[in-house]
Amino acid sequence: MATCIIANGALSMGKKVSLFFTFWGLNILRRPKAVQTQKNLIERAFEYMMPRGTKKLKLSKMNMLGLGTEMIKGIMKKHNVEPLDKLLAAIRDGGGRLVACRMSMDLMGIRKEELIDGVEDGGVATYLADAEKGNINLFI
Amino acid sequence: MATCIIANGALSMGKKVSLFFTFWGLNILRRPKAVQTQKNLIERAFEYMMPRGTKKLKLSKMNMLGLGTEMIKGIMKKHNVEPLDKLLAAIRDGGGRLVACRMSMDLMGIRKEELIDGVEDGGVATYLADAEKGNINLFI
Amino acid sequence: MATCIIANGALSMGKKVSLFFTFWGLNILRRPKAVQTQKNLIERAFEYMMPRGTKKLKLSKMNMLGLGTEMIKGIMKKHNVEPLDKLLAAIRDGGGRLVACRMSMDLMGIRKEELIDGVEDGGVATYLADAEKGNINLFI
Repeated sequence: MATCIIANGALSMGKKVSLFFTFWGLNILRRPKAVQTQKNLIERAFEYMMPRGTKKLKLSKMNMLGLGTEMIKGIMKKHNVEPLDKLLAAIRDGGGRLVACRMSMDLMGIRKEELIDGVEDGGVATYLADAEKGNINLFI
Repeated sequence: MATCIIANGALSMGKKVSLFFTFWGLNILRRPKAVQTQKNLIERAFEYMMPRGTKKLKLSKMNMLGLGTEMIKGIMKKHNVEPLDKLLAAIRDGGGRLVACRMSMDLMGIRKEELIDGVEDGGVATYLADAEKGNINLFI
Repeated sequence: MATCIIANGALSMGKKVSLFFTFWGLNILRRPKAVQTQKNLIERAFEYMMPRGTKKLKLSKMNMLGLGTEMIKGIMKKHNVEPLDKLLAAIRDGGGRLVACRMSMDLMGIRKEELIDGVEDGGVATYLADAEKGNINLFI
């Protein structure tokens, strides 16, 4: 959530934004529905056990079996804060780069067609090149 | 703790310091005692369930029902490391900026009078403006 | 893991790299086997309870009593990603600086001889000096 708020804020101030998603972070980029793919058993197990997309994200604390998360979602709606999938789409549509870490994709058996539209894949060199051009760089 | 140590170190080296507190981080800025406020039911529930101030912080690992945390506090005292509330006050009194994220305050129903003295509130633009002027910028 | 991958990537692109290890992060630098030291009771308790070295690291999620971690290690091997101890040694041997936080060592009762070869100790001033010279600076 912090990532999306900061990125949207930076875009609205006319800055260039690039988000690099590694490991568990990749799950945020997954399409909510399963995509037909060729996978081995372990990759398939990971596919089913890992959360798909922003809707599955839980509060990092006080989740309380989902109650806390639902409460915060309700409050966000009341305060006109967009839900995460909208914020993510806004970053992409506003010119922000969404890069999925290729090594993480390999390790977790995630295929590119399982990710939402507009996501590129890249390596650590992609990340470092963007980070070096940037003025602000965060690991969230 | 890392935040406070790095911030105090930077101040003592003559640097400008600005700390931006979002979401759970806001709890660190809360006064240890309840403050009379107007709140709805959900906000009141959050108020009572969330920890108030630095004294309620637990070790991120090896808390062991509070034993580990107490041990570390004891060791910190023995090694003349100031407790967190003192470190935080030292940052503020040394000219460091403590900014509470306004959107997080709205979402969690935290009022400004519930936060310790010397805290400003600000938005993502406040953060980005400070971060851009800075040479070192961390998400902790 | 992210730390090691990014650091190795940066070194291979000809950048200078400095890693500063604080608190729980120090455990990654510990030798896998116990070293004879003079310690008080609390320090000794911490020594035995904290994980020693990279081999003891678990996945931050989906560890599943060790099964998930072993699965990822297997997949890393299959995809020719070096294990963490090799990645760490590669950083050190490639000219990267490994700095152990002296205050954390004091608090956790870790002696320098318990850490792997090639590790320096330093304070927050050491970190800030390196961070200020650097272009990219992450808290991981």
